[in-house]
Amino acid sequence: MHSKPVALDAMGGDYAPSALVVGACRAVRDGIPVVLVGDEAKLRPLIPSGMDLPIVHASESVGMDESPASAVRTKKDASIRVALREVAEERASSVVSCGNTGAVMAASLMELGRIDGVERPAVVTTVPRTDGGQVVILDLGANVDCKSSHLGQFGVMGQVFAHHVLGLENPRVGLLSNGEEEGKGNEQVRATLPLLERMPINFIGPIEPTHALHGGCEVLVCDGFVGNVMLKSVEATIEIAGKLLKEEIRRRPSAKFGAWLLTGAFKRYRKRTSANAIGGAYLVGVNGTVVVGHGRSDSRAVYAAISTAHTAVSEQLTSHIGTAVSTALAQTEQEDPS
Amino acid sequence: MHSKPVALDAMGGDYAPSALVVGACRAVRDGIPVVLVGDEAKLRPLIPSGMDLPIVHASESVGMDESPASAVRTKKDASIRVALREVAEERASSVVSCGNTGAVMAASLMELGRIDGVERPAVVTTVPRTDGGQVVILDLGANVDCKSSHLGQFGVMGQVFAHHVLGLENPRVGLLSNGEEEGKGNEQVRATLPLLERMPINFIGPIEPTHALHGGCEVLVCDGFVGNVMLKSVEATIEIAGKLLKEEIRRRPSAKFGAWLLTGAFKRYRKRTSANAIGGAYLVGVNGTVVVGHGRSDSRAVYAAISTAHTAVSEQLTSHIGTAVSTALAQTEQEDPS
Repeated sequence: MHSKPVALDAMGGDYAPSALVVGACRAVRDGIPVVLVGDEAKLRPLIPSGMDLPIVHASESVGMDESPASAVRTKKDASIRVALREVAEERASSVVSCGNTGAVMAASLMELGRIDGVERPAVVTTVPRTDGGQVVILDLGANVDCKSSHLGQFGVMGQVFAHHVLGLENPRVGLLSNGEEEGKGNEQVRATLPLLERMPINFIGPIEPTHALHGGCEVLVCDGFVGNVMLKSVEATIEIAGKLLKEEIRRRPSAKFGAWLLTGAFKRYRKRTSANAIGGAYLVGVNGTVVVGHGRSDSRAVYAAISTAHTAVSEQLTSHIGTAVSTALAQTEQEDPS
Repeated sequence: MHSKPVALDAMGGDYAPSALVVGACRAVRDGIPVVLVGDEAKLRPLIPSGMDLPIVHASESVGMDESPASAVRTKKDASIRVALREVAEERASSVVSCGNTGAVMAASLMELGRIDGVERPAVVTTVPRTDGGQVVILDLGANVDCKSSHLGQFGVMGQVFAHHVLGLENPRVGLLSNGEEEGKGNEQVRATLPLLERMPINFIGPIEPTHALHGGCEVLVCDGFVGNVMLKSVEATIEIAGKLLKEEIRRRPSAKFGAWLLTGAFKRYRKRTSANAIGGAYLVGVNGTVVVGHGRSDSRAVYAAISTAHTAVSEQLTSHIGTAVSTALAQTEQEDPS
């Protein structure tokens, strides 16, 4: 049992603050305690009367177009920083933000700090594979320029995440590459391979996106630039596939009738593939539970992200990750001859 | 009118040589002259009697698992090199290969050479957008580690390609990034932006994959590592989307009947999204017409790649690209104050 609320950065995201308040209300109705963090004057009128949804006032916010690091550094009273302080000072269990990922990352480093031994926290989420499984991908945008040592640590954090979140005993870890044959990969891939081989993980080598999405591994390691491009390409292609199919269906009346019979199937398909259903990504490697929602999150996605954070706290995910990562990294350092 | 045949590297690709010969036969029946290049003893028995499909013998071939550069350098009689010499010595109009892209690139540099002023040739193809348009993407894997100057040239070659292949007057060129706001992008993106701004092209700045695939630009510039990951992610996601939808359809009998009415629509959808229908990618920046097919190409994809090469030759695409690129690059050098 935990009774501390999820702190929601109510000022972050394309549809802030209204979609965030609506998502928070749904969570409260479902029995998940939430505290809104943001401009009280803007938030108060959005809360239905009688709803148990407290506000922690924050006088500033970080825009999607600001340089995240400097905005967060100068704005000590930004909603994301205030929300994270609620966790650091143990008044809240976790933070959910749909704001700028870079800003969430920078603020988390300032307010929560890194897990011992972790060089760079990473953003991680799972993506469905064709075989019905899931693949954990990290980093998804927190670190656009990575050293090999960062990627090596992502392998360890990804393995721990797959174990604790997906319940896998011995998840296979692959390094994203443009090919799996000898000589493929860019300079970074070639420099990182020997490092990942030394880590105490089930590392299977370089892997192509096609192979990974078809079930070739449970954890996919990449830098945040490539990972972000891959995730956004997957999301956009799902939309393109739906649109092209709709166009073909509309060409003939019999097909239109067929499509009507398929309404339920299409709806379930959309639910399974919608970015809004995923419920956000975790920031792993910081001392606290932080869930980053999509900037375009609607109230349903906000609700999903709050549920994700709530579940992670119930399962003590951050503490499991912290312990496992520290152990794995210490072990690697001992083994490391250099 | 041109009567020179397309030289097909009959030993390259996962289904070589049989799928390649079948694809070549279909092209010959359609009036496109083809010459097979490869091991005569293996190829001769595959050719139906009476079919006008000559063979140029090549005693070696490059495997998918060899280091492309060194394999191509040492194997002077590799099928890809012999095929390219048919073009260099003006006995063939163009080359089609479904072999290792790196090997095709390395061999093309040796046998055909680069267009004057081009630092690095690039692999380019078009991908469908949600708005019904197409986006030209380059590089797709020939250059996994790029300098900013290479990316700048890709912008020029991409613009020329979009103009001559898609018939667009003033195609918008974007630089692939993880975000479009100030401060987003990795080091390479930030270093390349000022360079692309100086090029004589319609450069619109950094662009996210989602925005590009939804119609934000006609030309998308990226390094070969990221481009390859993006293309493979798009291809894999199209398969995933189809598979998930099929699963949902199979859940209910009424949906199954609906799906039966949609058979034609699904078929047309698959045709529009199949990698086999695309017909290969061009290698731009070399002195000759070279089409690179997918390693997994079946006979239909081989036929499509041969048609692509044949059409490119009819339209003198390589010479148009050569002239336009040389002019653009010369213009940029004159303008360049450094």
